[in-house]
Amino acid sequence: MLVDTVKKYNAFPALSLPDRKWPQKSLSKPPRWLSTDLRDGNQALVQPMDGDAKLRYFQSLVQLGYKEIEVSYPSASQTEFDFTRRLITTKAIPDDVWIQVMAPCREELIRPTIEAARGAKKVIVHIHLSTSACFREVVFNMTERETIELAVRCTRLIRDLTKDSTDPELRQTEWTLEFTPENFQDTSPEFAVEICEAVKAAWEPTEENNIIFNVAATVEVAMPNVFADQIEYFCDHISEREKVCVSLHNHNDRGCAVAATEMGQLAGADRVEGCLFANGERTGNVDLVTLAMNLYTQGVDPGIDFGDINQVVDMVEELTKIAVHARAPYAGKYTFCTFTGTHQDAIRKGYKSRARLEEKLGVSAKWRMPYLPMDPADLGRKHEAVIRLNSQSGKGGIGWFVNDVFEIDMPRDLEIAFTRMVKRYAEEKSVEVTHDIIEDLFRSHYMLRCPEGLQLLRCTLRTGKVCSAVSNGVNGVNGEHKHETKGKALANKESRSGTVRLQAVIAIKGIRHEISGSGEDMFTSLVSAVHRLGFCFDVLDYHTQWQHSEGTEHEDSAGTTRRSASFVKLVSGGKISTSWGVGIHEDSVLASLHAILSAAEKLETS
Amino acid sequence: MLVDTVKKYNAFPALSLPDRKWPQKSLSKPPRWLSTDLRDGNQALVQPMDGDAKLRYFQSLVQLGYKEIEVSYPSASQTEFDFTRRLITTKAIPDDVWIQVMAPCREELIRPTIEAARGAKKVIVHIHLSTSACFREVVFNMTERETIELAVRCTRLIRDLTKDSTDPELRQTEWTLEFTPENFQDTSPEFAVEICEAVKAAWEPTEENNIIFNVAATVEVAMPNVFADQIEYFCDHISEREKVCVSLHNHNDRGCAVAATEMGQLAGADRVEGCLFANGERTGNVDLVTLAMNLYTQGVDPGIDFGDINQVVDMVEELTKIAVHARAPYAGKYTFCTFTGTHQDAIRKGYKSRARLEEKLGVSAKWRMPYLPMDPADLGRKHEAVIRLNSQSGKGGIGWFVNDVFEIDMPRDLEIAFTRMVKRYAEEKSVEVTHDIIEDLFRSHYMLRCPEGLQLLRCTLRTGKVCSAVSNGVNGVNGEHKHETKGKALANKESRSGTVRLQAVIAIKGIRHEISGSGEDMFTSLVSAVHRLGFCFDVLDYHTQWQHSEGTEHEDSAGTTRRSASFVKLVSGGKISTSWGVGIHEDSVLASLHAILSAAEKLETS
Repeated sequence: MLVDTVKKYNAFPALSLPDRKWPQKSLSKPPRWLSTDLRDGNQALVQPMDGDAKLRYFQSLVQLGYKEIEVSYPSASQTEFDFTRRLITTKAIPDDVWIQVMAPCREELIRPTIEAARGAKKVIVHIHLSTSACFREVVFNMTERETIELAVRCTRLIRDLTKDSTDPELRQTEWTLEFTPENFQDTSPEFAVEICEAVKAAWEPTEENNIIFNVAATVEVAMPNVFADQIEYFCDHISEREKVCVSLHNHNDRGCAVAATEMGQLAGADRVEGCLFANGERTGNVDLVTLAMNLYTQGVDPGIDFGDINQVVDMVEELTKIAVHARAPYAGKYTFCTFTGTHQDAIRKGYKSRARLEEKLGVSAKWRMPYLPMDPADLGRKHEAVIRLNSQSGKGGIGWFVNDVFEIDMPRDLEIAFTRMVKRYAEEKSVEVTHDIIEDLFRSHYMLRCPEGLQLLRCTLRTGKVCSAVSNGVNGVNGEHKHETKGKALANKESRSGTVRLQAVIAIKGIRHEISGSGEDMFTSLVSAVHRLGFCFDVLDYHTQWQHSEGTEHEDSAGTTRRSASFVKLVSGGKISTSWGVGIHEDSVLASLHAILSAAEKLETS
Repeated sequence: MLVDTVKKYNAFPALSLPDRKWPQKSLSKPPRWLSTDLRDGNQALVQPMDGDAKLRYFQSLVQLGYKEIEVSYPSASQTEFDFTRRLITTKAIPDDVWIQVMAPCREELIRPTIEAARGAKKVIVHIHLSTSACFREVVFNMTERETIELAVRCTRLIRDLTKDSTDPELRQTEWTLEFTPENFQDTSPEFAVEICEAVKAAWEPTEENNIIFNVAATVEVAMPNVFADQIEYFCDHISEREKVCVSLHNHNDRGCAVAATEMGQLAGADRVEGCLFANGERTGNVDLVTLAMNLYTQGVDPGIDFGDINQVVDMVEELTKIAVHARAPYAGKYTFCTFTGTHQDAIRKGYKSRARLEEKLGVSAKWRMPYLPMDPADLGRKHEAVIRLNSQSGKGGIGWFVNDVFEIDMPRDLEIAFTRMVKRYAEEKSVEVTHDIIEDLFRSHYMLRCPEGLQLLRCTLRTGKVCSAVSNGVNGVNGEHKHETKGKALANKESRSGTVRLQAVIAIKGIRHEISGSGEDMFTSLVSAVHRLGFCFDVLDYHTQWQHSEGTEHEDSAGTTRRSASFVKLVSGGKISTSWGVGIHEDSVLASLHAILSAAEKLETS
């Protein structure tokens, strides 16, 4: 630091409110939302949006469900004025949507502001005036008395130009007044109430059409609990509370805008102004996405639909030219994503446990998932956004990826071996491990290099009765049977009790081999047949899995193709080295043969 | 939304704590800081840092002032283990800095973790264990009892391997234990206290060397006030409070990590874990920069030096490959920046008022500035970062830029005219207005196209006495005199009382002209001389300013060059058009001549 902070900065003088009630409360309904993306957000851009861009943004806001939208600062530029006219003349505003137009408390700027809104159905005229001592003294050189007089004068003018106007067109509009004493947070609470009372008396709101007092933290200068005390004070002291809508407008200078806005609602506020992804002056306005989704994940419908969040991100990034941060709550690309082994493992177990529970319940279960405060699918995000792999990842995430690519669950020992291999790769290459890398590594280490080169021309399995030429559904010794079917399991049991004789004709790279062997089941008979081909190994482990490529749980329905996956772990004749082999094929015999030959070849070349 | 939120999500069950004390409190001292940039931050990167990168980061953290740094998760990868060894064997850790190493509660991973830390002077061994019902049941399938037993078993193991070890090298290290019951926020408070009591009894901490209970919001699932209640409950119920350091570790899933961490401190927590710029799993850990600067701007020295924030941003962005968001509190490139006219005007007035106040006081004043919660200079940021111009900007910002470029303050009328011109330009071109654009626009509209083409070869001014050939310090009629000197002002007063005769020889593009004129002062005599050159105009307005290029307030000290700026507004002979002209020159006569000729030429060509 360059300076002595104690000498340069004062602690914020907090209000004393020992009887505060807000900490006991919780949020059970959404506020009235006001999007100020097109005003506060827009004015803070390096390149403010042109009319076409603002229109697209406006239409997106309407589609998301916003019913109050601050569309412009008409006196700030011709673009702003023209855009307001365009919305109205092209009838772009749905009947149930209020537009809001802003002006400072200056007569010559209020008149064009209202002129810009002429002909709209529902209009909130928003005026702001500096009430904090710092602003009044440094910028405007005005006393509290003069400030109140100016606010009242402007309110009367707006009244004359709107609801009391003799112009029939203007009288057709439903007009509401929003008054922002700014920076409210830095204004004495007594004075804030006093000036709002004067403005309210001048405007004369009704219970049906409230006056909006936007008690803004234009600059965030205190902790959210201090802000909540201020809001509770304001809500308790403003008269005719039923005619008043208390609105929040929090900026994020201390990184606490979301918390302050939520606690302000606990303290009594009815309405929230903000921007998507916290656009706006300096550190931005409060983030409307986070606020809505924070309600959503507590079981409160926010009334705004972020069911396709990626589309919203794309729209905002394109029009504001500011990227949503990778770690932004709910919307960032890393928000639901973990690279870490323990996290991945927990999440994978969580999904499995959830699937089991829902199968048991027969309905969808309450969300309860390690490390994921909500279901990314509710935002239209796939689980690909959840698990990503690097050198710190573990078998949870790697197993997930293998399942994505091959639709198989590795046996635990294979999972451990493959995880070690992937992590070493990631560490050596210093790269993120993609699905493609997982596929390459898995294929090159465990599967036949050229599986098409191996053909099963004929196959007979005998246990006393003749099996079909292509025999499906024979299970291994320690089989984990993902989509196993009862009938087949039964067939397997039978075959295990006796001796199985296998006779087959295979082609390896076009060369025919007649093979035969016997054992207690298809697998062991296949092993003995491969031994006779000249390979020398013992089997340490063997698993097989069934899968329906459509992922259904039902038996062979039309349009699904069943596949079999075999996993074998072999040890070389000299007991020197071991190798895993994996085969995946519609034919279970061929799947096993692939697995055995792949592992056996690896042992020969290792 | 894709689903019915009420059916899918539960409201978080808040603790009832009606007698809570934290909302009355305020933060008056910094916490113990722990940076987990190299662990939680690192494991959440697409490409975790290699050893060299981690070392650079570590050294930066030390330089910033961090005394507790979580350096690794040694059992997660060889890189992590090796980095820990490297820090120790290369003696990279200052004597007053604690390193922290993390492991899950698994014996086989705790042993290498402690082995990695062998030989360090001060080590915090950090173990974490899932205590929330969700984690215990879904991931670990463990009861509360089994969870406590595992925690105690691991604590005893660590004790055996560290402070109770018989290995003389291990006994030389100062060992502290950190235990994280996670997710604390989602754990029943009673069970969190119960398991921490058991771990504390097993570890036997002292008042001098506390045990650290890291009551983490591993996933943020509730509002910050709910979290503060949980922390207050924990702090009130844990025994031997004097032997316990309560540590916070907040993630930002609900966008409230900063608020939760600050309120957790109000509620009694002593220590804070986080990352620079909120790196870390998913939405990141709490941002250490925001927390520190939030204290700083309240007059509390955080003990961490962010006096050169841009350097910190550069370091973190380079090593994590994640950009700091443009609106990040304190550090984003737009954080102190405004494009908006009213804001710019207020800030400009604020800086002027501050300069006046400090001149009066003779010392630096408390910070009090519209729209700027702190002085960007304290972060090593220039005011160029504050004001930026686009079509929504006003005369405040544009005047500031003109002052940056030419070191002049435009007269109000010129400022209004030039602002209109700049805004039109920005709107038409849809660009941000840079200093270069301001310079081009200003020069091309108000200044001589080729000022070197105009030379003053000789000049005599007579009021009865003869002036020097190059006459400085003659002031205009309505002059605003920025750095006016008393002696010259006096000379001016004298000259205004009589008639001034001017005789001069000038060269325009190499052609000599003898000019002469008379008036009540230098300026009017110059005007009459220019009239005689054939130009036909009247003067509507005239201002002049003095400036020292070094910006000193003192009279002509060595090394400073005084310059004069003249501003004239002329109207054409036919009263049809007006034009401003500006001249800036060391010679005040030439400055005025530039201004007059520039405006006169514009009138002729318009």
